[in-house]
Amino acid sequence: MNKLYVIKIGGNIIDNEVKLAAFIKDFAAVDGLKVLVHGGGKLATKLAADLGIEQQMIDGRRITDAATLKIVTMVYAGAINKNVVAQLQANGCDAIGLTGADGNAIKAHKRNHPTIDYGFVGDVDEVNTGLLKNLLEQNIAVVLAPITHDGNGLLLNTNADTIAQEAAKALSSIYEVELIYSFEKSGVLMDAEDDTSVIPSINPTTYRELKEKQVIFAGMIPKLDNAFAAINSGVSKVIIGKAEQLQQLITGEAGTTINP
Amino acid sequence: MNKLYVIKIGGNIIDNEVKLAAFIKDFAAVDGLKVLVHGGGKLATKLAADLGIEQQMIDGRRITDAATLKIVTMVYAGAINKNVVAQLQANGCDAIGLTGADGNAIKAHKRNHPTIDYGFVGDVDEVNTGLLKNLLEQNIAVVLAPITHDGNGLLLNTNADTIAQEAAKALSSIYEVELIYSFEKSGVLMDAEDDTSVIPSINPTTYRELKEKQVIFAGMIPKLDNAFAAINSGVSKVIIGKAEQLQQLITGEAGTTINP
Repeated sequence: MNKLYVIKIGGNIIDNEVKLAAFIKDFAAVDGLKVLVHGGGKLATKLAADLGIEQQMIDGRRITDAATLKIVTMVYAGAINKNVVAQLQANGCDAIGLTGADGNAIKAHKRNHPTIDYGFVGDVDEVNTGLLKNLLEQNIAVVLAPITHDGNGLLLNTNADTIAQEAAKALSSIYEVELIYSFEKSGVLMDAEDDTSVIPSINPTTYRELKEKQVIFAGMIPKLDNAFAAINSGVSKVIIGKAEQLQQLITGEAGTTINP
Repeated sequence: MNKLYVIKIGGNIIDNEVKLAAFIKDFAAVDGLKVLVHGGGKLATKLAADLGIEQQMIDGRRITDAATLKIVTMVYAGAINKNVVAQLQANGCDAIGLTGADGNAIKAHKRNHPTIDYGFVGDVDEVNTGLLKNLLEQNIAVVLAPITHDGNGLLLNTNADTIAQEAAKALSSIYEVELIYSFEKSGVLMDAEDDTSVIPSINPTTYRELKEKQVIFAGMIPKLDNAFAAINSGVSKVIIGKAEQLQQLITGEAGTTINP
């Protein structure tokens, strides 16, 4: 099986022109087949504010109403996705930017929650591995925006972490997939206040111990639960770490590696 | 040679939800390989106005400054392109939306004009026929947004008519290409005030005569010059007519056909 990297970059990189340019240079230099999944950053929030469109929040979650869907489609699929693709091309990396609607890449359904109406938010049903494989094997990096579709004409705002996880899981039937979540911290930390206290590797046994000792808590638990879910679905390795260290995350010299 | 349709829709259809839905249904029903090129319509102008970004005009031509480039990227490549793709999917037509940056589909250079600085406007250099062929032959319709790139990281605002023409010309090395310009009128008219006075076909000889008699003048001349330029570059047929009559334009029952 060929190796495939699925790499997610978070909003804090998207929002920082200098960091984004450095990341893109590093991503372009990654050898082999690769998928980039980008989040949205603060651009969508800023555009909504500039247009005077109020962002509804319920229980701390943003609701995607029709006006907000239009904004995230413009910002994620337009401004961010196309700039990332153009910059990859400038760095000698052929790339193609897709939403879930393009080539039916990612089909989803509108979230059906018993008590909260999230609006135009999608939960992923299916990733079109045939389309992605065809592009990847033409040596084209696939750049996924966090927008999916329901097959009935609706675009849906979809969490970028979820897209990365679903793409990695689906593509693990064809490739040996390494899933890399790059964010603002150096990895999973022993001490949340100390960015040098990275735990180099975690497996199900050490994960249980770290949770019992409450070293890992709060926001990190869903991230790690998702990482283990990906591994249990065929992804060979999940790496969590700092976007600025992409090369070292891949070689295992930095970040936290989640192993089966 | 297989037949390929390159179909351009103008802004007046993009701006009209009902007409757009009808057009998309008709486009989805077109049998065979097909490329759709869409313009921008008034959405970009409206968004610029809502954001208080002034549109500079020089000699009646819009100047694409950095803020305007960001807007057209969001509107053309984001809002319009992805909605068209999602609606094609809903009509059973697999489709993929691309800018020129995606898969290096259309490379351009920033326009270099001796007296006017058009800003971030691109003139097309090269169409990546290999990429388009690969997608088309997976039975995926290609939906081109009027945004190109220069290969050095710059996105460029590019006239949709030009994109349709350049794509048609380049692809005529592989396919028997029919280029269809659909717009608000029924075709090239004998009497500009009478939409029923369509001239069914024009060739170089009749074109010369019509220009001499001043039946064809003003805005229609560059359109027809472009049509003949396309034909002289290998496109087999150019059809000009009303978007609402797409089926009849293809069968030759409506519109004006430009023949070699």
